[in-house]
Amino acid sequence: MEQLGVGVIGAGYWGPNLIRNFLSSDLTDLRWVCDLSEARARKVVGPYGGVSVTTELEQVLADPAVDAVAIATPAATHTTIGLAALDAGKHVLVEKPLAPTVAEGRRLVDAARERNLVLMCDHTYCYTPVVQHIRRLAHGGDLGDLQYLDSVRINLGLVQPDVDVLWDLAPHDLSIIDHILPPGTEPVAVSATGADPIGAGRSCVAYLSIPLSNGGIAHVHVNWLSPTKIRQTIIGGSERMLVWDDLNPTARLQLFDKGVEVATGVGEEERTQHLVSYRVGDMIAPALPEREALGAVVDELVTAVREERPALTSGDAGLRVLSILEAASTSLSEAGTLVPLEAQP
Amino acid sequence: MEQLGVGVIGAGYWGPNLIRNFLSSDLTDLRWVCDLSEARARKVVGPYGGVSVTTELEQVLADPAVDAVAIATPAATHTTIGLAALDAGKHVLVEKPLAPTVAEGRRLVDAARERNLVLMCDHTYCYTPVVQHIRRLAHGGDLGDLQYLDSVRINLGLVQPDVDVLWDLAPHDLSIIDHILPPGTEPVAVSATGADPIGAGRSCVAYLSIPLSNGGIAHVHVNWLSPTKIRQTIIGGSERMLVWDDLNPTARLQLFDKGVEVATGVGEEERTQHLVSYRVGDMIAPALPEREALGAVVDELVTAVREERPALTSGDAGLRVLSILEAASTSLSEAGTLVPLEAQP
Amino acid sequence: MEQLGVGVIGAGYWGPNLIRNFLSSDLTDLRWVCDLSEARARKVVGPYGGVSVTTELEQVLADPAVDAVAIATPAATHTTIGLAALDAGKHVLVEKPLAPTVAEGRRLVDAARERNLVLMCDHTYCYTPVVQHIRRLAHGGDLGDLQYLDSVRINLGLVQPDVDVLWDLAPHDLSIIDHILPPGTEPVAVSATGADPIGAGRSCVAYLSIPLSNGGIAHVHVNWLSPTKIRQTIIGGSERMLVWDDLNPTARLQLFDKGVEVATGVGEEERTQHLVSYRVGDMIAPALPEREALGAVVDELVTAVREERPALTSGDAGLRVLSILEAASTSLSEAGTLVPLEAQP
Amino acid sequence: MEQLGVGVIGAGYWGPNLIRNFLSSDLTDLRWVCDLSEARARKVVGPYGGVSVTTELEQVLADPAVDAVAIATPAATHTTIGLAALDAGKHVLVEKPLAPTVAEGRRLVDAARERNLVLMCDHTYCYTPVVQHIRRLAHGGDLGDLQYLDSVRINLGLVQPDVDVLWDLAPHDLSIIDHILPPGTEPVAVSATGADPIGAGRSCVAYLSIPLSNGGIAHVHVNWLSPTKIRQTIIGGSERMLVWDDLNPTARLQLFDKGVEVATGVGEEERTQHLVSYRVGDMIAPALPEREALGAVVDELVTAVREERPALTSGDAGLRVLSILEAASTSLSEAGTLVPLEAQP
Repeated sequence: MEQLGVGVIGAGYWGPNLIRNFLSSDLTDLRWVCDLSEARARKVVGPYGGVSVTTELEQVLADPAVDAVAIATPAATHTTIGLAALDAGKHVLVEKPLAPTVAEGRRLVDAARERNLVLMCDHTYCYTPVVQHIRRLAHGGDLGDLQYLDSVRINLGLVQPDVDVLWDLAPHDLSIIDHILPPGTEPVAVSATGADPIGAGRSCVAYLSIPLSNGGIAHVHVNWLSPTKIRQTIIGGSERMLVWDDLNPTARLQLFDKGVEVATGVGEEERTQHLVSYRVGDMIAPALPEREALGAVVDELVTAVREERPALTSGDAGLRVLSILEAASTSLSEAGTLVPLEAQP
Repeated sequence: MEQLGVGVIGAGYWGPNLIRNFLSSDLTDLRWVCDLSEARARKVVGPYGGVSVTTELEQVLADPAVDAVAIATPAATHTTIGLAALDAGKHVLVEKPLAPTVAEGRRLVDAARERNLVLMCDHTYCYTPVVQHIRRLAHGGDLGDLQYLDSVRINLGLVQPDVDVLWDLAPHDLSIIDHILPPGTEPVAVSATGADPIGAGRSCVAYLSIPLSNGGIAHVHVNWLSPTKIRQTIIGGSERMLVWDDLNPTARLQLFDKGVEVATGVGEEERTQHLVSYRVGDMIAPALPEREALGAVVDELVTAVREERPALTSGDAGLRVLSILEAASTSLSEAGTLVPLEAQP
Repeated sequence: MEQLGVGVIGAGYWGPNLIRNFLSSDLTDLRWVCDLSEARARKVVGPYGGVSVTTELEQVLADPAVDAVAIATPAATHTTIGLAALDAGKHVLVEKPLAPTVAEGRRLVDAARERNLVLMCDHTYCYTPVVQHIRRLAHGGDLGDLQYLDSVRINLGLVQPDVDVLWDLAPHDLSIIDHILPPGTEPVAVSATGADPIGAGRSCVAYLSIPLSNGGIAHVHVNWLSPTKIRQTIIGGSERMLVWDDLNPTARLQLFDKGVEVATGVGEEERTQHLVSYRVGDMIAPALPEREALGAVVDELVTAVREERPALTSGDAGLRVLSILEAASTSLSEAGTLVPLEAQP
Repeated sequence: MEQLGVGVIGAGYWGPNLIRNFLSSDLTDLRWVCDLSEARARKVVGPYGGVSVTTELEQVLADPAVDAVAIATPAATHTTIGLAALDAGKHVLVEKPLAPTVAEGRRLVDAARERNLVLMCDHTYCYTPVVQHIRRLAHGGDLGDLQYLDSVRINLGLVQPDVDVLWDLAPHDLSIIDHILPPGTEPVAVSATGADPIGAGRSCVAYLSIPLSNGGIAHVHVNWLSPTKIRQTIIGGSERMLVWDDLNPTARLQLFDKGVEVATGVGEEERTQHLVSYRVGDMIAPALPEREALGAVVDELVTAVREERPALTSGDAGLRVLSILEAASTSLSEAGTLVPLEAQP
């Protein structure tokens, strides 16, 4: 089967990881690396033959052997580069966040749809074995009704010069939540609070509360100022509950046969006093395969292009994440006001 | 020195703990246990001599040998019982929360002040060695400027029939925060969100964001639906940071010589790009004494009465906690609206 | 059904726990507490009616309403007291170790057998839910062939004035191992090493290696000088492996679907190079009931007496544990010489 | 300053790590990689220029620009290759264990001494920040008298086709112990027990007890059949105790201000009953630098050559480790008999 011809735009922080995975995949043929700094691009490509280096996006887009373009540049440039690539008939893989605003993100989504091209977001975490396992559980009904989802992503992190902690870290949590929520359970609004206690000029701590359409709630805590690193997601479901502790390699995912249920069809008084039932059973830590998520991202890009279908983490998914980020920013600037989300695309 | 004569009102959930500590203290003479159920009172008192049992509050208040009354009844009854006790000239120790509303709490505080009597809140956690240690660090400046305080108190807990998770669990976190915050750093408002995903008729999950007067933020997560038990407080300070994990007896308190600082007196551009400095040093887990907190509560009650001074966890402290609870309830019912707190008493 | 009349001999360290459990059981009628110090006995009995206190063993043994005697005195006195009790026709529950020597232990076992009386050892750990669960797994074949068993019991412990760390702590590990090993898999010898690095006059650190009849090995590490408390047992089986961490209440027992197997019936060369197979699957932490082990000890004593059968932790079990202890002491004094164990009773 | 010319012999399991570190060091000039398989050597060298590949050891030794040779071949070949290299006037870095027998190891040590060449053992762990920190503490007296040292290195590991678990894993523990023990405290003997419960034809579980000259004890547990990975060393000292948990990156080294002491100059009776004193203080987890140990190995090789002094992990150190391994093998085959160690070189 023919390989997918690929050009990578941006050889900075994340680009090298994409480049490494495109190079090691049998399904892709990396043809170009484009960066403002030719030296940086050349250094990342290293001794590998067959990969050209340029500072001109046009050169990449003009190459008919390039089927798809992967964009790993700062978010502010995603729209211009993405639209140019789509206009040139290239499929697009774009880093998170999809675009700096919902409006611009929608232009990318619309452009891809009109041209029947794949627009895929690199929501890398969604391709980890653990998130795929959780998605299967949630979509398959094994968790029951989703009661709440609590995601903590904190450590002593770099204070970024251009974005606040919300835009730096929360895209991970929000793309995971988007991927996990079963069809029909949707975020309906967001209330965000935060602080900049060190005077950095942007929030360094942020909390997002996201009511869900089924009466549940999702919550995200992102923080650059924590003495301890925590990457933990807790999900409560009516059938099962789970804890995903990404820093615990021996039991990364713990599935609890625990639950709380309220019987229905009874009076208010009885319900709360007598008919709350608790269930406490075994805990299972399923064996998960070891696999680099970016390899699966590359596979999905190629497969989506071949099968002419939306990618698992499509432009629409990127737009949903972007909608929450934008609404959260608004809420953050209005001290936690609940900002409703439009009906999801 | 003469013992303090004490009567305990309420022999239900918490009363027996108070009774046990009053009995074992050399400083107190437990004279009465009063409960609606005489059988329950008698059972709790057990074989101990010298303790009378009654269902009539008046009997306790009429006894001139009773100097102080400890109230361990449901919150709705605190005001009536407390005012009666103060009117009878008794000092009062009252369970958390001080009263069901700020207005009623204020009546208790005012009554005690007018009569020069001690009104003490049983904020038990404030008397644990770990909280006392943290308070010393925070008040003594060892933590530097308080940047944020994040408190998580979650487990598979009983869905209470009369209160939501906010009023059930958050009083612990709020009384601890009140005790730790150094003078001059005050909560200024609260935004609360939550959910009742099991249809219990009251919030089972709640999140509180509390902006502080110094630009920092406090946050509380209380949850009855968690598969895993977490009792963890993280405090970020400009000089030191700490993690208090109450379920880790071998290193309950971890003090990190870590920090992030932004240099002052420089332009916006330079500040964020060049002048954020990180410091990573040793971690110290201080040896903490093993001691039951309630024993220290009893000691403090006796000492405050003898020295005719407010207790460490005074009625005012209870009122401050109550103010946040009440504002949080309002915010919760208004989907996270930021509710300002009055200037603290 | 009639209650079992019981007398407890010894009201020191462990006696009060026995007394509390005999008092709270519906199956037993505690009639006597006997101790060299009448004051201590009286204090332990407290306000409970119906329990007599004495310093004379004969008084207890002379009471026809006493069916069984529980001996919680120093090991050196077990034989005399136990034989007297058996001679008086009383069933006997005795603290670990059964007796100070195998020879004396055998006299107790023989005396009980001749008189058709129950002689039970209080191997308390064997009655915990976790050990009972492990025993079911091991005896039921769920673990497959037992490959090794590694038991660590260390902390900063009291240097006992009369026994070394081997006789103080290892009886726990050895009684657990005895309880878990499936029929047909037996300890065949013991090699013990240790040290007294603080000059206490007795070993404060000891290691026991115990070859098993199936080619496997058991090992015990007991230590009074450890900065950290560890109570961990690892068991490798051909079908499953497990970790019991007694200080981890949320996953006390972890059962791993992991294993290593060598195919049989092939040449030496092939076996080791090609036919070692590894299996890595899920981990399960089974839900275990919360229950005080001593309550189950009391139940078992009563049931064994009623059903006229040996107790689960019989005199024979105590004798097996004692045999290993005695052999280990010999090995310890001979710098690790392997001391064979007699065929097990 | 001139770079050290280096040849690496063996491009199998560990060789590539050496090659990577020699390539990235400014102090060394990697000139040759020699392997039985030229293809493997070439693959490991990759696109790097200036490194020649050969299957002939003689070619490497004949190159006058080669100052030192690093030997990463199976242990059975260390002596022949090492002696050839020393005869050719090359300094030698050799993987653990130094040689397959003490006699052969001594030939290497003697040959290096006669020729005034550096013979260095690649005891990699000794160059980790944590072991260097522990060595400083132990040699500087901060731990006080070393009471015991307990090292556990277990996981579900590959059953090696040519060596047992003792020779596969214990060299790590023994080289660390050798590095940490302060001058004057020496291993005096070893008792080893083990088992091959899967019929692999070699021990898969082994325990080593090593009495020390100061009355303390060292113990090593190595195991290929454990469901859980443990890399933990506990050291008890009269002044301080420590736990090194290599799988806990946030508190890899924990230093406890704890201890047990027996007063001296008193009678036996008093000593054990009254004069054992316990001290429990803070725990400190020192900040340790992040650094690859092999980089420090390369630095030490170059520096030892330049300064014409023995390397920190000299041939003598390798010989001491080898002596314990050999004695342990003897003890293992004699069921735990205590095998004395000769006075250390």
